[in-house]
Amino acid sequence: MTPLRVAACQINPVVGDLDANVARITAAARDAAQRGAQVAVFGEMALTGYPVEDLLLRRSFAVDSREAVHELARSLDAAGCGDLIVVVGFLDRDPDAPETSTNPTGGARNAAGVLHGGELVARYDKHFLPNYGVFDEKRWFTPGDRLVILDVDGVRLGLAICEDVWWPDGPVAGLAELGVDAILCLNASPFEVGKPALRREVVAARVAEGGAPVIYVNLVGGQDELVFDGDTFTARSDTDWAPGPQFVEATVFTDITASGRRRAAAVDGWAVTSVELPARPSSPVQAEAATVADLDHLGQIWAALVTGTRDYVHKVGGRTVGLGMSGGIDSALVAVIAADAVGPDNVYGVGMPSKYSSDHSKDDAADQAQRMGIHFRFEPIEHMVESFVGQLHLTGLAEENIQARCRGMTLMSLSNLDGHLVLATGNKSELAVGYSTIYGDAVGAYAPIRDVEKTLVWELARWRNQRAVERGETPPIPENSITKEPSAELRPGQKDSDSLPDYDVLDDILRRYVEQDQGVAEIAEAGYDPELIRKVARLVDRAEYKRRQYPLGPKITPKAFGRDRRMPITNRWHDPA
Amino acid sequence: MTPLRVAACQINPVVGDLDANVARITAAARDAAQRGAQVAVFGEMALTGYPVEDLLLRRSFAVDSREAVHELARSLDAAGCGDLIVVVGFLDRDPDAPETSTNPTGGARNAAGVLHGGELVARYDKHFLPNYGVFDEKRWFTPGDRLVILDVDGVRLGLAICEDVWWPDGPVAGLAELGVDAILCLNASPFEVGKPALRREVVAARVAEGGAPVIYVNLVGGQDELVFDGDTFTARSDTDWAPGPQFVEATVFTDITASGRRRAAAVDGWAVTSVELPARPSSPVQAEAATVADLDHLGQIWAALVTGTRDYVHKVGGRTVGLGMSGGIDSALVAVIAADAVGPDNVYGVGMPSKYSSDHSKDDAADQAQRMGIHFRFEPIEHMVESFVGQLHLTGLAEENIQARCRGMTLMSLSNLDGHLVLATGNKSELAVGYSTIYGDAVGAYAPIRDVEKTLVWELARWRNQRAVERGETPPIPENSITKEPSAELRPGQKDSDSLPDYDVLDDILRRYVEQDQGVAEIAEAGYDPELIRKVARLVDRAEYKRRQYPLGPKITPKAFGRDRRMPITNRWHDPA
Repeated sequence: MTPLRVAACQINPVVGDLDANVARITAAARDAAQRGAQVAVFGEMALTGYPVEDLLLRRSFAVDSREAVHELARSLDAAGCGDLIVVVGFLDRDPDAPETSTNPTGGARNAAGVLHGGELVARYDKHFLPNYGVFDEKRWFTPGDRLVILDVDGVRLGLAICEDVWWPDGPVAGLAELGVDAILCLNASPFEVGKPALRREVVAARVAEGGAPVIYVNLVGGQDELVFDGDTFTARSDTDWAPGPQFVEATVFTDITASGRRRAAAVDGWAVTSVELPARPSSPVQAEAATVADLDHLGQIWAALVTGTRDYVHKVGGRTVGLGMSGGIDSALVAVIAADAVGPDNVYGVGMPSKYSSDHSKDDAADQAQRMGIHFRFEPIEHMVESFVGQLHLTGLAEENIQARCRGMTLMSLSNLDGHLVLATGNKSELAVGYSTIYGDAVGAYAPIRDVEKTLVWELARWRNQRAVERGETPPIPENSITKEPSAELRPGQKDSDSLPDYDVLDDILRRYVEQDQGVAEIAEAGYDPELIRKVARLVDRAEYKRRQYPLGPKITPKAFGRDRRMPITNRWHDPA
Repeated sequence: MTPLRVAACQINPVVGDLDANVARITAAARDAAQRGAQVAVFGEMALTGYPVEDLLLRRSFAVDSREAVHELARSLDAAGCGDLIVVVGFLDRDPDAPETSTNPTGGARNAAGVLHGGELVARYDKHFLPNYGVFDEKRWFTPGDRLVILDVDGVRLGLAICEDVWWPDGPVAGLAELGVDAILCLNASPFEVGKPALRREVVAARVAEGGAPVIYVNLVGGQDELVFDGDTFTARSDTDWAPGPQFVEATVFTDITASGRRRAAAVDGWAVTSVELPARPSSPVQAEAATVADLDHLGQIWAALVTGTRDYVHKVGGRTVGLGMSGGIDSALVAVIAADAVGPDNVYGVGMPSKYSSDHSKDDAADQAQRMGIHFRFEPIEHMVESFVGQLHLTGLAEENIQARCRGMTLMSLSNLDGHLVLATGNKSELAVGYSTIYGDAVGAYAPIRDVEKTLVWELARWRNQRAVERGETPPIPENSITKEPSAELRPGQKDSDSLPDYDVLDDILRRYVEQDQGVAEIAEAGYDPELIRKVARLVDRAEYKRRQYPLGPKITPKAFGRDRRMPITNRWHDPA
C-alpha cells in the first residue's frame, strides 16, 4: 500500500495580518504539494498568528478571521492545490453562542480547519486550554469536546492542538480508542531554555498513549515577547525521532502507512466526527530527508535572541535600529545581536560619554563598531547634563539619573530624526534588582537581553566571539569589554561590586527567588547569607514597581526577572523569613 | 424572637500587607461588636487585598496568607470579640491539591473564612470565577462546589462571593433549595461608571432567586488601576434597599430574623456544610441607621479619581506629588484631583514654559496654584531644549518631542531630589489617538485622568468649580483654562483642531471603536464620515504600540482608551471596512 505523504509546514505568520498569512500559507502548501505532499499541516492559529490576545475580543476582528479561513480555501484552490488536504490553525466560533459582556465574541474556538476542494470540510476545537504563564486561553476560548478523524484513502489521521498533547486522558486517549495511524498536532509552543527536551518527553508519552506517531508542527518566529523556535518533528516512539530545523521556516515530510488500526466507533464523553477524503495522486518527486544540525545550548539561546529582535523590528514595520554603546559588555552584546538580526548596515550605535566615562569606554565602543561595520557616532552628553544639573542643582541620585536620561533622550531624538527603533541594553540581573534608570537606559522599543542574566551575557559574548574565530571572522566584541569590571560610570570610581555580590551569586539567588518562587528561608538552605538574600529580595520587590514602564524583550525562560510576573504594584508583601 | 444583628464592614485593605490587614479587620470587628453586632462580614479577599495577581503563585506568599487567617482568629479573640462571628475573604488552599508547574500553589481558593472563638470554624470557596476584563480568576483559583450555611441560634445565613451572585442557577439557587434567612455576599467589585445601578439590578434578581435578603459587602479604596467604591448594601427586594456610603470606610448594620425557612437537606450537584454557632448576647446599644447622601454621576467619578490617586500615592509609600502645570485644562484638573487626594500642601506644581508657550499659559498656571494654595515654581526649559536641539540639530517632530521630554526629565529630577511621586496629566482621548510623547508628558507613576475623556475633563472642571462656589470657596480652576482652545504649544500657533475633529465627535467615535468594539462600517451608521472614522481607528491602532510604556491610572470605564486592552504590539490587523 502506498504511504500517505504528510508535509508539516513550519511558518512565521504575523498576528492580525490575515491577507499576508493567507498568501504565506498558500505558498507553503503549493510548495509542499509540488514536493509530493498529499496532506499539509500548519501550526496552531497559523492563519491569525499567535497570540492574538484581546484583539480576539473585537467582534470585527473575529468576523474577519473566520472569513479568512474560507478565503484561504479559495486561495489554495486558485493556486492549483485544491486537491491537497490542508490542516490549518484558525480562529473559529460557535455560531449559536450568544455574545455577552463577559464574552463579546461568543464561543470563540482555537480550531484546526481542514480545507479541501476550495472548502472548509471539517473543524476540530482545542480541548485543553492553557491558562498559566504567558497563556490566557480560558479568557479567550471555549473548549472543544469533539474528536475528529480524517480518513484519507484508508489512512486515519487524528487531530490535536498543542496543550491537548500535554496531558493524559484527553483527546489522544480518545483517538487511541478509535484507532488512528497518526496524530497531527498543531502547535504555537514558545521557546524557553530546555523546552525542546521537555516537548520530546511529553510527546513520547502521548505516542505511547495514542499508539500512533505524532506529527508535531510548530510556528516559528518572534511575536512580541515570545519567540517560537519551530522544532517541528515526527515522533514514532521515544527513541524514533525525525526532527526538523529550529528558528527557520521549513517543511518536514513524513510518510504514514495505514495500519488497519480501526477500533471503537464511539468514545465515552466525546462526540466523534469522521471525514473521508481522497488523497491526491502521489507525486513521483522524492522528498529530501531533513538534514538538521542540532543547535547546542548557547546556539539555541542566540538564535532565540536574534529571531526575537529581527521579527520585532520587522513586524512593527521598522528596518533600522539605534542603541547606546558604552564600551560595556551589555551594549556590546546587544550590538552583535542587532547586527545578526537586521544586518550591520541597519545598526546605528551612539557613544554618549559623560565626564565620568573612562577612556577605555569610548575606545572599546568605537573599536567594536569598526570590527562589525555598523554605523557609529559620538554624542557627548556633557552640555545636556549640565543644562539640567546647573538649573535644577542636581546632586546624588538625581545627578546619576539625569546622565542616563540624557542618553535616553538623545537616542529618542535621533530615532525621531532618522526612524530607528531604539533598543534598550539592560540585562535581566540588573533589571531584577532595579539597577536601571526609568526613562534613561530603560528607554527603547525592545530590550534584546531583558531575559538574559549577567553571567549568561558573558557566556554568550565569549561564545559568539569563538564562533567568529571558527568562521575565520574578526571576533566582534573587544576582549576588554568582556574582561573589564562592570560599572555604570555614573560617578567617579563607581563599580557594580560596591553594592552587589558577585554576579554568579546574585544570579543564583535571583533564579531561586524569581524563577523558582523560593522563599528566603528556602534559599538560605543553599548556603547563602540570609541577610544578603533579604537584601536581594527587597531590591526585586521594589523593582517590580517599575516593571510596567519597561519595554518588551524576548522571553527565553519561564519568568523574566524584570517583567512578566503580573504583580500588584502597590503590594506590601515582603517574604518575612 | 430577637433578630440577629449583622455588620457589613466596608474596609480598605492593602494588597499583601497581611499584618496591617489583620489589625484593620480586628479594629473594625471590635467596633462592630461594641455597636451590637453578632455577626461581622468583610469583603472578598479582605485579608490579602484584591487583586493579588501573580503574587498568589508565590508559594511563600500563599503560605503566609493562609497562616494569616489563623492569626486573625487569634487576634479577634485577644481583642475580646472571640464570641463575634466574623466572615472574611481570604486566600485558602486545598491541602491535598498537588503543586504543578502550571499551578505552583496547587488548588488555591478564593474563600470566605468563618472565625469564632479564636478558630477558623468553616470555609466557603467561590464557585463562579470571573475571567474577563480586569479579572483572571481562572488563572489563580480552583472553583468551589460546596454550599455553606451558618445556623446562628436558628437564623440561617448562606455564603456567596461576588461573581456567585452575578449568574442564575449557581450557589444562590442551591441556597434557596436549602432555605436561608439571608445571604452574606463578600465582594471585590471595582467601580465603573454605571456599575452601582448594574449591581442593584443583578442582586435584585438573586434576592428573588434566593428567596432571602442579600447583604452585599464590598471593599473600598484604590488598588493599582482599580478603585473599589464600597457601595455596601442590604437588598430585601427590588425596591427595598439599605445602601451604605460610597468611597469611605464604613459599617452598615442589618437585623435578620429567623423565618423557619428550612427546606431540603441536600441539593443535587453540591456538597453542603452546615455549621451551628451561638450568637453572642445582643447588645443594648442601638445601631444608628445609615444616612447616606447618594453621590450623583459626576460626584461618583470625582470620588473615584480622588480615591484612586490618594490610595496609589499612599499604598506605594509616597506622601507628596509633583506635576507639570501648563495652564491647560488637563493639568489644571489633575492639580485639583491631587490636592483633594493628598492635600494642597503635598502638591508641587511646576510651570515649564518653552519659547512657544503663550503668556496666558504661565499666568493661568500661577493663578491656579495661588487659588489652591499648592506649591509652585517655574523652571523654564529653554536652555535644556537648546542643548539638545543645538547639538543634535533637531527639527520637526524631534524638536516637538524634546520639549515634552525635557519637561518629563525636569519632573523626574525634582522627584529624585525631593521624593515627589510624579503624576502624568494626559487624558483618555489624547492617549487613545497617541497625542502624547512617550518619555515626555507620559512620564509619571500614576496618571489620574488616563481614563477620563476630554469632554468629561471639561465637565468635571466646571462641576468642581461649581462645588467650590456652593461651599463659598474660590473656584480652583481659572475660567481661562476651561474656555481656551486646546493646544500642546509645541510649535507656533499649534491647535488640537488642526489635526483632530471636535472633541465631542472624537470622543463618540473612540467610545464606539474602543469601548463598544464597533467596526468602521458599524460606526459609520451613526452618521460619521468613514474616512474620519478610519483615520481615528488607525491612530488608535498605532497608539497601542506605546501602551505598555504608559503609567497606571484609575479605571472608571470598562476599557480605557490608552491601555488595558491586552493587544499584541506587532499586530497588523486594521479594520478594513
